[in-house]
Parts: sequence; structure tokens; C-alpha cells
Amino acid sequence: MPSGRRGAARHSATVLEAARQLGIDLESICGGRQTCGKCLVTPEYGAFPKHNIISDADHLSPPTANELAYARKHGLDLSQQRLGCAACIQGDVLIHVPDSSLARKQVIRKAAGDRTIDVKPAVRLVYVEVLPPTLGSRGDWQRLQDALAEQWDLHSLRIDPVLLRTIQGALRAADGAVTVTLWEGCEVIRIEPGYVESLYGVAVDIGSTTLAAHLCDLRTGTVLATETMMNPQVRYGEDLISRISYAADPAGMKRLHHAIIQALNELCQIAAQTARIDVHNISDLVLVGNTVMHHLLLGINPVEIGQMPFTLATDEALDLRARDLGLKAVHDSARVHVLPCLAGYVGADNVAVLLAEYPYLNHKAVSLIVDIGTNAEILLCAGERILSASSPTGPAFEGAQISNGQRAAVGAIERVRITEHAVRYKVIGDERWSDALPDGKTLRPTGICGSGIIEAVAGMFAAGWIDASGRLKPSDGPPVEGVRPNGWMREFVLAPATETASGQAIVITQKDIRAIQLAKAALYAGAKLLMDRLGVRAVDHIRMAGAFGSYIDPLYAMRIGLIPDCDLAQVISAGNAAGDGARIALLNIDQRAHITELVKRVEYVETAAEPQFQDYFVEAMHLPHTVDRFPHLESVP
Amino acid sequence: MPSGRRGAARHSATVLEAARQLGIDLESICGGRQTCGKCLVTPEYGAFPKHNIISDADHLSPPTANELAYARKHGLDLSQQRLGCAACIQGDVLIHVPDSSLARKQVIRKAAGDRTIDVKPAVRLVYVEVLPPTLGSRGDWQRLQDALAEQWDLHSLRIDPVLLRTIQGALRAADGAVTVTLWEGCEVIRIEPGYVESLYGVAVDIGSTTLAAHLCDLRTGTVLATETMMNPQVRYGEDLISRISYAADPAGMKRLHHAIIQALNELCQIAAQTARIDVHNISDLVLVGNTVMHHLLLGINPVEIGQMPFTLATDEALDLRARDLGLKAVHDSARVHVLPCLAGYVGADNVAVLLAEYPYLNHKAVSLIVDIGTNAEILLCAGERILSASSPTGPAFEGAQISNGQRAAVGAIERVRITEHAVRYKVIGDERWSDALPDGKTLRPTGICGSGIIEAVAGMFAAGWIDASGRLKPSDGPPVEGVRPNGWMREFVLAPATETASGQAIVITQKDIRAIQLAKAALYAGAKLLMDRLGVRAVDHIRMAGAFGSYIDPLYAMRIGLIPDCDLAQVISAGNAAGDGARIALLNIDQRAHITELVKRVEYVETAAEPQFQDYFVEAMHLPHTVDRFPHLESVP
Repeated sequence: MPSGRRGAARHSATVLEAARQLGIDLESICGGRQTCGKCLVTPEYGAFPKHNIISDADHLSPPTANELAYARKHGLDLSQQRLGCAACIQGDVLIHVPDSSLARKQVIRKAAGDRTIDVKPAVRLVYVEVLPPTLGSRGDWQRLQDALAEQWDLHSLRIDPVLLRTIQGALRAADGAVTVTLWEGCEVIRIEPGYVESLYGVAVDIGSTTLAAHLCDLRTGTVLATETMMNPQVRYGEDLISRISYAADPAGMKRLHHAIIQALNELCQIAAQTARIDVHNISDLVLVGNTVMHHLLLGINPVEIGQMPFTLATDEALDLRARDLGLKAVHDSARVHVLPCLAGYVGADNVAVLLAEYPYLNHKAVSLIVDIGTNAEILLCAGERILSASSPTGPAFEGAQISNGQRAAVGAIERVRITEHAVRYKVIGDERWSDALPDGKTLRPTGICGSGIIEAVAGMFAAGWIDASGRLKPSDGPPVEGVRPNGWMREFVLAPATETASGQAIVITQKDIRAIQLAKAALYAGAKLLMDRLGVRAVDHIRMAGAFGSYIDPLYAMRIGLIPDCDLAQVISAGNAAGDGARIALLNIDQRAHITELVKRVEYVETAAEPQFQDYFVEAMHLPHTVDRFPHLESVP
Repeated sequence: MPSGRRGAARHSATVLEAARQLGIDLESICGGRQTCGKCLVTPEYGAFPKHNIISDADHLSPPTANELAYARKHGLDLSQQRLGCAACIQGDVLIHVPDSSLARKQVIRKAAGDRTIDVKPAVRLVYVEVLPPTLGSRGDWQRLQDALAEQWDLHSLRIDPVLLRTIQGALRAADGAVTVTLWEGCEVIRIEPGYVESLYGVAVDIGSTTLAAHLCDLRTGTVLATETMMNPQVRYGEDLISRISYAADPAGMKRLHHAIIQALNELCQIAAQTARIDVHNISDLVLVGNTVMHHLLLGINPVEIGQMPFTLATDEALDLRARDLGLKAVHDSARVHVLPCLAGYVGADNVAVLLAEYPYLNHKAVSLIVDIGTNAEILLCAGERILSASSPTGPAFEGAQISNGQRAAVGAIERVRITEHAVRYKVIGDERWSDALPDGKTLRPTGICGSGIIEAVAGMFAAGWIDASGRLKPSDGPPVEGVRPNGWMREFVLAPATETASGQAIVITQKDIRAIQLAKAALYAGAKLLMDRLGVRAVDHIRMAGAFGSYIDPLYAMRIGLIPDCDLAQVISAGNAAGDGARIALLNIDQRAHITELVKRVEYVETAAEPQFQDYFVEAMHLPHTVDRFPHLESVP
């Protein structure tokens, strides 16, 4: 139990053996030596008519000396729980296997609800006891191989050559007992003296702006620390194009590469401190990022991504050694897996989104996944088909190139409600709307972030301050509170000077509206192109992913025509799906193989090569007349 | 011709295709593009009754445009020679294939006479043309793989990830034409723009005292440069034991490792300068050395080799990347192959000796191979059996711990002839014997090297100056020229003060004689032990290898009992067999596999564990009464 599997076991087989025979993967690091306690099971004693099993304590062999010692040391009540590798079956038994004793653990992706990840990482621990050397005996690595073959049936193993420097120390420290870390079941990448349980990995989503790292316990799948950090490359260029330009100079290229490697080293350090682990126990990393980040990470000049035909140096998944990248805040022989890219502007981060979201799509329906950043990556899935495109939305959604734009940080206006008569807004860091604040306002806005701008533009259009072409209308009405038109309106005031942190009004200019129109038109046109290609006129589900994408209110996104029409209830946030995908690849090696196969099915559509894209783009510049479809636009508080 | 193979070819098959069909491996780097000129053949025109072939120029297709262009550029007379990949067979032909057009070249090992090495290195060049990227096309590495699959039938290739940094530059520089270097047919380790023929490798014998490097052209097998250098570790300890002690301190260990890596970098630099090649075209290295050198090279602390039970960290052959060792004066992705070791004191250098000598042994007879350095490595081969041991000869043979000892360099006494009445000697750097020199001697001796000491001891014994126990006899005879006994002889004067460079007499002391006795007894006892184990009382052939071993005159070596009795004509020098073995492994990948298998058959005998060894050792301290067997001892000039 709880799997309900049953069968006949050989008399005196251990519970561990019997469980494996029934296909239940009880965990064991010590290899049945009755020391690691990972295979704890709960025998259920009594008669179980339903199962035709009558069991008493004698149906299992009495505790062994090792088991008694383990119980004493760890305060285990052997009348309640037994070591699966010690208790032998001597009659009918009903055994309950707690979740914690299963080798294949599952963890839940918090952000995305009830989704689970099977824990089956690329690295695993194996405890082994190696005979001491004698005169004329073979080398230590050879004797370790012999022991692994005999005790774990592991054959044809490789070793990272630099580990040969520590193998003798590790073997002598605990009389030949070592815990070996195996990568992909074929290469020894770590040898620790004695019995060891520490095995960690890090998944990093390398965004143009933000790096987000999850430090995971690779035995249990638990996230021990999540740390984010500004991408230090920002100082060499805000957006991708400026970083590509900066990389044109070899010294600049070197700086960008070193900046990201240095940042990854720091992130690992910080995460390890938070989790109180030794960085040198980090044995595996999964890295994802857009194609420019991908190339800069690997030390590849991204210059060709910046020009037609946007060629990548490589688009396949990569396995390398952390040290070949210059990563130092990890184990010396740690491995790095980089997810594959799709095309010039559809990178490993988008592949990670696909990995995270694809299994949860309804494949009978048409699903659109948009990952919005400096570029919008678009995936359209239906049945067996997966279409992909990238649209140059530019940095407007991230608050860049917007008059009072800023990143989504404390002080940024993130929500805006506009009527013909009033403007209300909400600032990150304060739960209240601006009109609900007392006179001595505590949190004054410093600027406006992407979600705020989208809501502002949507609200201005709904309230009639701009027309469908995005043009600010002449101010012919009477001045109203919170709205201060200025002759022919050149700008729309969101927060008057008296309310802001700087003492300058926070406004939306004609140029700002145009920037948002360009960005949303690019995204919409890309989605439309994929819909054309798939031969559908509407989508059934939309998932908005990415640090920015998951903050946008779907209502307003649809209102300005950022995404195609869809039942609002079917537009949901996928959270940081790229980060989740990276974590899935870290925790489950089968998923790495799976996404590599999935990627081969993706049909990439190069927007720059499609004349239709320009037409759709121009069309999509207009704000859509869908106001009648959203009578509840102002019903949201 | 000259292979004499014949067969029917398809009409219009190229000569290249027909040759391959007949199993003749015509070289081609350009892949049949009529540009590299590696497949040049000489058609023989006329009637050849013996072959039933009548051939005229029309039996081959006329020259192609490419062939004409090649001929113009390289001054080729197409009436005499044709490109095998251009000329198509249209009738009976007789084709002569010059050696230079065979893919499998052979080179001759100079030192060892007529022995040949088949050139089939671990790395090879492949010229390929990759389609330019277009919108939506895959990454450059993927398109390169496609081209290699299509044009060379190469599949499932890996790439050194750091090469991804240069792949785009290489592909764009010559419109997609690149020459790829493949390691073991499976991994791309170098991508050069355009058509390239440069492919080099270095084989290094890392001796405790001397490093010897051969820089080879891996296409032809030619040795382009041979460079030697003092092992810079000498400054941290003359012999192996003192280096092991020095490595006990981690800082000392680091110093020893860095010293050897730095020296290898310098050796590659110097050899490349001599050969006028770019070090970055060195793509493969083979390194051999004794077990302590092997460990220090790999950064492994050799401390355990210095104490019972003399355990190695690893004894298997290793393949690694040069950069993981810190080697910089080679291509960034160059590979390193380290030959396997046998046991505590029988290292990869001795395995290299086995590789170089084993194929030339008469396996119906009993062959002894001794490689003499600070340790003597001994191999005894007969039939299928290979026995191996290591004897601690100490550094006496290298001139260390000898009163006037010195290395075998200009000025060292290397030959000595002693009678009851006179002493003659010869100095390195002068062809004449000391008694043939005019009064104004030009080259004055500075000391005595190993071969000189052996001849001196042998001569002193034959002339009666020492007894069989090695003791200097009392000076009871009259003083003779060149011999100045001093009461009870405390020392034997080889060169009086008036003849030497320093103005001090060069002498052999009782202590020196004892040191030589200890060294020769160790070697002899080891050989005896192996002979016991094999169940033989004599050996049929002896090969003396090593920088020192190959300089000893076999007559004197046998005279002092350094080696077992054997027909003198069957005692030959194997030259620097370890260096030759390293070169063989560099030039031929099959030989790497071969030696790995051969090593598994070696029965290692640990002298330290055999009580018999001590008995043999004590016995062998005496000088043997074999003077009657060598009446010609003084017939040598």
C-alpha cells in the first residue's frame, strides 16, 4: 500500500527486494546495508479480509543488529516501522510505503497549482565499499569500478579525470567507504568519503533583465532557495540589440560573458548560504535563456543573431562541464545542461516554457502561449502540431522607452482605472487604490510599469481620451478631476505633480501610446500569423508567461489587442514558466530527452520572412472596438 | 600497382572509387572535390601482356576543368599524373599509386632500424562545404553536422562545446568551406576556415630527469622536431622518493604539477618554432612517464606510490582534454592520451617500451627488456606470457651519488679501458681515446657518466684491481702509468689531475663501486625473479632501453652482471623505446587499443613482496667470474 500492488515473494526475501519485484521503487542509498534508513516501511499487522492477508509481527523476520543500532541512533520504534532492506518476509504481509521512502519522489510546482514533477535527476548518489589496496592490486579507480560493478551492477563507467586527484583521499578517509555521484548513470563526477546524502542542483532562468535561480535538493526535489538578481549585463546595454552591438568588440564580448558567469557564481553562493549548504555539493545545473543570453552564457558572440538570417551557432541541447564555462561556485566536476533553442529569437527559455506548459494543454483545443519580455515568444499548439514565432515587441512592456516608465518595483503604478471623469491607480507596495488613500499619502508613485501602461491605454481608449488609431483626442470637454488636458492634449496625466515622489507629474505621452501600440501590434501579428498557418480563426486557451506576462491583467491585455480574442476565463497566467521548465529539466532527466524530441516537432515561423506579418502588424496597430464585449470593464475595483 | 590488386570497376567510376573498391586507401582530404591533390596517381599507358591490359590515354576520361586548374596552379603534367578523384575509368587501365598518395602512410623508426609505423592517428582532417544559413535554417553546428553526414557519411558526432565560440567565424570566413579535425571519428575538436592540411601531434616521454618531445605531422607521420629539456622538477628533488616527499606538502604538490605542465608548454613552443608551425595546430598529445611522473602530470599526489602497498590512483589509459591539465601551447580543444600504467613502479613509460618492442620479439624465445633509469623496469616475454617487475636501482647509473659522477654530457668519461698497466678513456665530444690525444689535449674530462663507471668497474675487476666482492685490492704491485695506488687503494684514479678540466683527479672510490654493485644487483635480482617465475634459467634475447640503457656497452653490462648471461650478439639497444612507444601511440590509434589489451596480459611481480628477491639481491652483489667467457674483453679498441 498505497499502490495496492500484491504478489508472491520468495520466503526470506527482504521487503526491499519484494517491493522492487512488484515495481515499487523503494529508495536505498546505502545499497541494502541497513544504514541509510531511506527504505523505512510500516508493516500493518492484523487480519485484512479484503486482502486475504493475516499478518502478525512474526510474518517479518526479527530486527537485525544493524537495524537495532539504527533504531537506537534515530529513535525509531521498530514495532511501528522497519527498514525495508532488513525485514525479511516470512509470511503474508501488508506493507505501507510512505511517500518519503519512494525513490521516485514528486514535488509540486507551487506557482502553477497542482502540477507535479517526478524527481528523477541526471545525477544520483551511490554508496559503495571498496576493498583496501594490497601489494600488486590495481589502481583505486579500477577497484572503485569493481566495487560499483559488484555492489550496484554498474558497468562501463567513466570518470571526470580531475577527480583522480581526490580519489585516494576520499577512499582512505573512511576505510574505503565512499558515496559516489553518478551523472547520467555513466560518469562519476564526485566521490565523497563515507555515507553522504547531500546532492544539490540549480536551475537558472537567465533573463535579459533578471536572473532567477532555484536551488533544489536533488534527492527530494525540494526547492531549498530561490534567489533573483539583476542581470549585470544591463550596464552594457538595456535591450538585446544594444548588447549584441556591445559584443561586436571582442573586449565587450568578454565582458558580457564574464558578467553573466560571475553573476551565476554569485547566485549559487547566495542560494547556498540561504539553504545553508556547501556550494561544492552543487553537482548539476540547468540553464535557460533567450538566444542572446544563451550565446553570451556560452561565450559565443551573438552578432549573427542581430542580423538576417539570425543564425545561431547551435540550437541543440548541450551538456558541458561547469568549469568549461568558468563556473566556480559549484562542485569542480559539476555538469551543466542547457536546453535547446528553436531559432534566431526563440531561445531555451521559450523551450523551457514549452516543457512546463505542454503536458497541461488540452490538445484537442487550440492553445496559445505567449512569453512576453523584450521579445515576445509565441507558441501555438493544437493536436500534434506546435507552431512557434518570435515578435519584436521591444522593451516598452518592461517600462523602457516610456516617458515615465520604470521596472515593476515598489513605487511603480501597476494598475490604472480611467473613466471620463476620473483616474485612479494603484502602486506596487500598497494594496489601496489612490482614491482610497488618506490625504497624507504614504506611498507616492515613482513611475509606471508595463502592466500600468497597458491598463492606462486600455482605459483611455474606453473613456474616449484616445481614438482607435491611438491618437490623443482634442481636449474639448471641461477639465475634470485627475485629468488635466493641455490645449490639444499632448499628454495624459495619470498622477499630478502633487501626488508623485519626484514632484513631477506622471504622464502618458503620444509617443508612449505609440510605443505600446507597436509592441502589442507585434505580438498580435505574430499570434495571427501562427493562427493563419495552423488554419484557425480563434484560440481556445491563452497562457501568459514570463515575469511581465504573468502580471498583466488578461482583461486589459485583450482590451488593447495584445492577445487575440478568447474567453476571458481561458486566459490564465503561467507564472515564470521558463523557470519552472528549467527546474523540471533539473529534476527529471526523462524530461530533458522529452523536450529534445518535442522541439523537433516545432514548426518555426520566421516573422521577418513573412510579408503577411507586416500587413497584420499595421492592422493591429489600431485599438480594437471590442468595448461592447467587455461591459464589465469598469466593474473591476 | 604496386599492390598488384586488380578487378572490374563500373564504367566511368573515378580512379579513387575504383581504388577504394579494391581496398587501396587513396588519400583524400577534399572529399573528391579535385582540389587537395592528395590522390595523385600515375596511369601507365601501353600494352601490359602480363596483366592483359591495353591502355591508352582514352581509357581515362579527359582532364576536368578543376583538374586543369589544379595542374596549372601546381605545375602538374597531366600526361604523367592525374587526380584520382577526377580521372574516370573508360577502359582497361594500369594505375601506379605512389606511396605519397596512400592514406595509410608508414614511417620508419630511425633509432630502431627498419621498423615501420602505420600512420593512423586518433585525429583526422575532413574538408566539408556547409550551405550558407537562410532564414529559419538550423544552427551552424547542426548544418555542419548535416554536411558531414551527407559528404562524409559521418553521423552522431559530438563537439567540444568551446568550439561553438568559433564555429560561426570559421564558417563565414570561406563561404562555408571548413576543414574539421575529428578525434576518434566521433568528436569535432577543431574547425578551420577553408582547406587546411596542418595537423600536428606531440609525443612526450616524461623522464624524471629529461623530457623528450617529438612533434609529428599527423598526416604523414614525419617527425618535424625532436626537443629535449631538463625536467624542471629536478630542482625540487633529484630522485623519485625526494619528489614524493616534496609533494607531501600541498604547496609542493602544486609546484611539481605546475613545473611539469609549464615545461610541456615550453617544449611544445620550442618544437613548434623548430618546425615552423603554429602551436595552435597541435591537436593531439601522447604522454608517457613513470608512475610518479604520471601522477604529478595529472595533478595526483604520488604519496601512496612512495609507501606500501604502492597504490596508484588509476592505472588505466586516460583520454582527457589538454586544457584540463593546463596545457596552453596547443589547440584549445587538443586531446591528451596517457598510456596505462602497470603497477606501483611500472609506469606508462614502460608500457610504451612494451608497445615499441613487443611486436619485434621472437615469441618462441625468451626475451628480456630492461629500461634503466632511476628505477629499472624489467619485462620478460615468452610465448603468450609477459612478466613485469620494477627494481630500485637508484640514481647511480645516472651519475648521481658517484664521487665524480655526472650526467652523460660533453666532457663526461663514457668509455674506459683498463689493463694491469694502463687506463684509457674516451670523453663525450671527442672521438679519440685519451692515449691517442696529442699533448695539448683539447677536451679535458669533467667527470664520469653511467656507462663510464660500468666500464671502469668491469675493467678494474678484469685487471685485478678489485676482487669479486668489489673490494679494492691492496696496492702491492709497482706503480704503473695512469694508475696511482695510494697505500691500500682508497680510490682508483681514472684521469690524473693534470688531464682534467678542474685540475682535480677523476677517481672511482670504494663507495662508488658499492653504489654500482647495489644498482646492478637490484636489476639482476629483478630479472632473476622473473626468470624464476617463468621457469627459465636463461634468456635468449636482451633489449636495453632508455636514455641510459641504450648507451651501455652490452659487453660491460654483462661483465659486471647487470644483465643475465646471454649471447652477446643477442643483446641489442632498443634506443629510447619509451619515446618510440609514445610516438607509435600518437601515430596509430589501433596501437592504443592494442597496448590496452596487451597490458591486461602482463603479470606483475612486486619485488618488494618476494622474499626471494632479497636473496638474489645479496647474491648478485658479487662480480661474476665470467672473464674466461669474454677473452675479447680487451680486443675492443
